[in-house]
Order: sequence, then C-alpha cells, then structure tokens
Amino acid sequence: MTTTPSSLGPKRIYIQEVVTRDGFQAESAFIPTEQKIALINRLSRAGYAKIEVSSFTNPKAIPMLADAEAVMKGIERVAGVEYTVLIPNLKGAERALSVGVDEFNLVMSVSEAHNQSNLKMSREGSFQGLLSVIDLAHRNHTAVNISLSTSFGCPMSGITSLSELMHWVDRFADVGVRGMTICDTTGMANPAQVQAVCEAVQSKYPQLQWTLHFHNTRGMGLANALAAVNTGIDRFDSSLGGLGGCPYAPGATGNICTEELVYMFDLMGFNTNMQIDTLLECSRDLQSLIGRTLPSQLLMAGKVDRLYAAPCQS
Amino acid sequence: MTTTPSSLGPKRIYIQEVVTRDGFQAESAFIPTEQKIALINRLSRAGYAKIEVSSFTNPKAIPMLADAEAVMKGIERVAGVEYTVLIPNLKGAERALSVGVDEFNLVMSVSEAHNQSNLKMSREGSFQGLLSVIDLAHRNHTAVNISLSTSFGCPMSGITSLSELMHWVDRFADVGVRGMTICDTTGMANPAQVQAVCEAVQSKYPQLQWTLHFHNTRGMGLANALAAVNTGIDRFDSSLGGLGGCPYAPGATGNICTEELVYMFDLMGFNTNMQIDTLLECSRDLQSLIGRTLPSQLLMAGKVDRLYAAPCQS
Repeated sequence: MTTTPSSLGPKRIYIQEVVTRDGFQAESAFIPTEQKIALINRLSRAGYAKIEVSSFTNPKAIPMLADAEAVMKGIERVAGVEYTVLIPNLKGAERALSVGVDEFNLVMSVSEAHNQSNLKMSREGSFQGLLSVIDLAHRNHTAVNISLSTSFGCPMSGITSLSELMHWVDRFADVGVRGMTICDTTGMANPAQVQAVCEAVQSKYPQLQWTLHFHNTRGMGLANALAAVNTGIDRFDSSLGGLGGCPYAPGATGNICTEELVYMFDLMGFNTNMQIDTLLECSRDLQSLIGRTLPSQLLMAGKVDRLYAAPCQS
Repeated sequence: MTTTPSSLGPKRIYIQEVVTRDGFQAESAFIPTEQKIALINRLSRAGYAKIEVSSFTNPKAIPMLADAEAVMKGIERVAGVEYTVLIPNLKGAERALSVGVDEFNLVMSVSEAHNQSNLKMSREGSFQGLLSVIDLAHRNHTAVNISLSTSFGCPMSGITSLSELMHWVDRFADVGVRGMTICDTTGMANPAQVQAVCEAVQSKYPQLQWTLHFHNTRGMGLANALAAVNTGIDRFDSSLGGLGGCPYAPGATGNICTEELVYMFDLMGFNTNMQIDTLLECSRDLQSLIGRTLPSQLLMAGKVDRLYAAPCQS
C-alpha cells in the first residue's frame, strides 16, 4: 500500500465520474435531459474531481447524448469540480466551446483494428484530426486530456504491447496535452500489466496528469485499480453503480463501479474526498431510473458498518 | 507483484476449491450425490491443491451435505490433490475417519457474536471442543486446518481487531495444527487490512500453511487476493463460478470465483497449476445444474484471447 507519512495526512485520490457519458451511452431508452441534469447536480456535491458530462459527437450516431449542449448549459457548476466532455472532432470542439467546458477529452485507440472499427479511420488519421482540436483548445485556454482506448488489449487484435502504447503516449506528450487516460476498454488488463504500464508512463512523464480507466469485464477491475494505486497513480475514472455494459459480451459488466472503488480506497485510509452515502443514494436512484439492477455489489450488501442481528449463518 | 527470480521459475499458487461444500450448502434444491461425485471427479483433474469435498455436520442441520460419506467414498482420489472436509465436532470427525480424508478442516469464529449465532456456543466452548477433535486427528495421522471465520469483520459486531484474531491464531498454533484459513466470511475486508493481517500471521508463524478465504460481497474479492499475494500468501480458497451467496444480503455474492482468481494469477505470470479451460467448462455446466446464472464475469466474457470481429464499439 502506498500511503504518505501521517504527518502529511492520507494520500489524496481523485475520482472522475463517467456515468452520464460512458454509462448512459450504452442505454437504449432515452434518458430525459432534466434527469441527466438532476443526477449531475447531485453528483457535483459528492466530492468528485471531475465529471464527464456528455459527448459532443454526432447526435445521429449517439442519440442518447444529442442533448450535450442543453445538459452543459443546464447543470450547476460547483467550484472544485471540473466538467469535461468527450470531443471526437473539430465540429464537436466548436459545439463544446459554445457552451464552455473545463476540459476536452479526446479519444483514439492504441489498436489499429479498434480505431478503424470504433472511429472509422486509421490511428494516424485520428491523430492528425486531434492535433487541430488540441490546437483549438489551447488557443481557447481549455485543458486537453487524451483517452487512449485499448491501452492494455483489444478484442480484435489481442494484448497491446507496452511499446505500442508508449508510441502514442510519446506523440501526444509532444504536443502539450495536460493529461492522458489509459483505458482498459474491454477489461483485458491484469495487475502485473497494470503495474508495468503505470510505472512506465509515470516515470517517463511525471508532469502529466495520469488517469486509469478500468472495466470489470473479467472481475479484475478493483484489483487493477489497486495495482495502479500501488505505483502512485492517484486518478481514476469510474461509473456510478457500474453502469455501462461490454458491447461485445451481452450481459457482461463494463466500467468499474464508483461506489466500490471509492469505498475500497476509503477503507484503505486514502482521502478520496467523496461522500459515500450520497453515492449510494444516487446509485439506488439510478437503478430506479433505468429500471434494472446495477452490477454494484456494495449497493446490494451495504457498507461494512451496516450491522445485522443474529442469527446470521456463514 | 511478488515473483521469485526467473531462474527458479514463476512462484507457485495453490488453489483450494470449496464449491461442493461452501457453495452447495447455500443451495435450496438437493443436488444428487452422483452429480456431486461427477463434478469433484472433473475438478480433481483441473490442477487443484485441495478440494473441500463436504461437511460432516449434522445431516438434519444441512440436508444438502447429508451424503458426505457417500460422496467421499464415491470420488476418485487423484494423486497430488488433498481431499479435505469440514468437521464440526467429534462425531463428525469419527464419521470422516470411517471413510478416510486427507485433512480435517475445523471451524470457529473470531467474533463471539458470530460464533454464538453460527455454532450456538461460546468461542471458548468451540475451542475446547475442537481440542479433542485435533487430538483425535493427530492420533490418526490426519492433518488439521483451522478456518477462522469473521477474521476481518463480523456482520453483527463490526470490524475484527488484529489482536483479537492473533489471540485465536496463537491458541491454535500452540496445539500443533498444520495450517489456518483466515476467512473474510461476509466480505468486509479491504486490501490494507488484508496486508496487515497477512504480514502479521506469516511473520509470527512462517512454518504454518496459511490460506486466505475471501468473499466478493462488496466487490473487493480479487483486490484482497492481490493484496494477500503481494505479502507472500500462496494459498487461496475459492468457489467455482463464485457459487455461494451471502446469507444476510439477499442476492449479494459470496465466495470469490475460482476461474477469475486463477485467471488473474495466470495472467500475472504465477504458476497456479490450473487448467483454466476445464474450470470454465465445469463452471458452465454448474450453471446448468443449478439452473441460474453464476456471478462469474469471466464465464460471461471469455478469456482475453477470445477475439471478436469488427465492428466492436467501446
């Protein structure tokens, strides 16, 4: 366990919520704009470092997020919380600038096959396109984060090598982005690989803001987060209730669950700055909103201080 | 990550299956004796260090396991696999000796409230009763393992202190048992607590065989296993498919899932000695046998080398 000396207080962990973008994107029934705004307003008071509000992608491609401007304009912006959005291209960037955002989150895949499948162009094509978005962001004093999909493995081409990942990390580091998110897009990472990747990126670029984005597709999500935090990583994406499926394995889970991630770090003595009870309430209400049980085990079992009366068998 | 130098090969991890005892015990519909035997015979060829076959408890208390003698007599005993059974008292011990077992697994709770609730007696009463079982085992040259329930926390009395755990560890170490299992009976442990407990027991009694038994009740099962292995622990209980619920939180998961535990360690480069494909086949068949979906995420998503054709969205 990596903890700072007690004289400095517990080490801070920064939690970044992706439920209203990554989570909602996988839902079929449209979630009304006012419900999105209401959820984000509650989450804004739960202690997050960052909330990924929506995506300025083509509304025809993802109708669920067609209301990105309305959501951005409708939410209260709480001091201390950064409101980020996914930006696929210049057009999306201009839409985002029109409503004002704290960060552009740009995405491409480390795997050529996944980039072709997901973004319909080559990695080189994506990179060149993103350069102009980065330039626009910097001219508008907006921070840029790059989310590197399939950083650990790709469901079409297999395990991603560290050298292939580092090639794209190097290229984006060279153009002055603030941070990068290393994404285990389909839950293929394991703790040993996570350790190697986290050590490599932090030692080469200690000045960048590094985020780890894990999926629980094969049950290893929190173990991977633990491996990352043990290398000094202090920033994680997660989704309330674990909302967000795996697009190629029906029924399988996607993003790691915010309340479980937060609760693990809280119990370990880290300072997540999060209101766990607020999270659990929001997760319970989200379950009602989407009308089905979420993958959150913590939501089902309750916190460890929830005591039960005898008899209790094991 | 704890690995031995490559000149010695990867570090060995010992996997112990509990599905036919701990998993089946929580099922309502009786599983026929021949089905139990058939499953154990398949598992015996999957590379386990140990299989907990059944429990020699009062058949009226747990009708599911009333066929313990028949199962023990019916299975093939494969060389290299230890066949252990849960023994609650002298009567159960005599039944076990009549059919021959490799190990007695004795159980008591570190929490007084849980011991009273689960075993209907005080911890001191349990300890004194187990002393005579240990004596009988040793006279019959049978190894003894002690499973300490609620080693990390108790759903009735809260978090278990390390000193309270060590009190019972000391008392059993004094009477010459071969090993102990530190059980997170209702999934209350976190990785920092796991690290502290594993370091404490191993440094005080390095000669004993230590097993860690985790539940995934709050999603931290594999993270806790990772924390344990990082301290040098090399022996884990787990349940095929994750079968075995949490008795006080309806719908919540119980034991960590064998195939997920094994697969995590395999991907990390440890030597589990396990046949992962056999495990996945057995888990799939178990799902059919009990007629519902198991908590195994790996079973749903498949291994990471399962490649998919485009298009594949993330």
